[in-house]
Amino acid sequence: MTYQDDNIFAKVLRCELPSEQVYEDDQTLVIMDIMPRADGHMLVIPKSPARNMLDATNDQLAACLATVQIVSHAALKAFDAQGITLQQFNEAAGGQEVFHLHFHVLPRHDGDKLRAPGNMEDMKVIKANADKIRAALASG
Amino acid sequence: MTYQDDNIFAKVLRCELPSEQVYEDDQTLVIMDIMPRADGHMLVIPKSPARNMLDATNDQLAACLATVQIVSHAALKAFDAQGITLQQFNEAAGGQEVFHLHFHVLPRHDGDKLRAPGNMEDMKVIKANADKIRAALASG
Repeated sequence: MTYQDDNIFAKVLRCELPSEQVYEDDQTLVIMDIMPRADGHMLVIPKSPARNMLDATNDQLAACLATVQIVSHAALKAFDAQGITLQQFNEAAGGQEVFHLHFHVLPRHDGDKLRAPGNMEDMKVIKANADKIRAALASG
Repeated sequence: MTYQDDNIFAKVLRCELPSEQVYEDDQTLVIMDIMPRADGHMLVIPKSPARNMLDATNDQLAACLATVQIVSHAALKAFDAQGITLQQFNEAAGGQEVFHLHFHVLPRHDGDKLRAPGNMEDMKVIKANADKIRAALASG
């Protein structure tokens, strides 16, 4: 399995598609999932090509997880959440739909359930949730 | 939230509880989940204390992901699987039940569904699946 640069996250990284970005560093970018399974559902992706965890370099994986931790703490604060569920899918059988490595960061509240996948959210809601995360990141 | 060393993975690491181990290096240990949601369901844990992803060091996270990749490739081979689902839960609201950082590695086949959580598997089956993974790791 090889990397194909026509996937939607590659297009986001080349600014050929819009995205709601909440965090960026040298190696990673964090965008809002437009089909969120929880308020504040984010995707952490490496800026460099990797199909998924199976072909990623150790550096890419380490950079992604460091970023997952940073934005997870921001999400706990932004949504007064009590937990984080992390998911990462590899190949179609593993649940992968976009073939650029990405980690799903899902803020959770006691007793909640993840919403069903595949439902597009109103972009006003996405932007409002992104604002909350950016504010939490800015406040440290 | 602080680390409590009476959790079952801490006891496994101190050899106070048995486990079916398939891989080990300086920083990580991989054991079979005894309530597997798929054949070959493994848990990757750091040898040093971390409650979950939220308080782990970047080194612990990087070491765990490097090991996740190694055992994922072995599992694809061992079970002729086509994908891997990776899950990691933080705090009870996030789905965490044992409070020592662990990554769930789930081998997947096209069209399968994860089994319901919480069902103990026959230890003979667990051991047979562990043997397959160890053989795949040994064959490189």
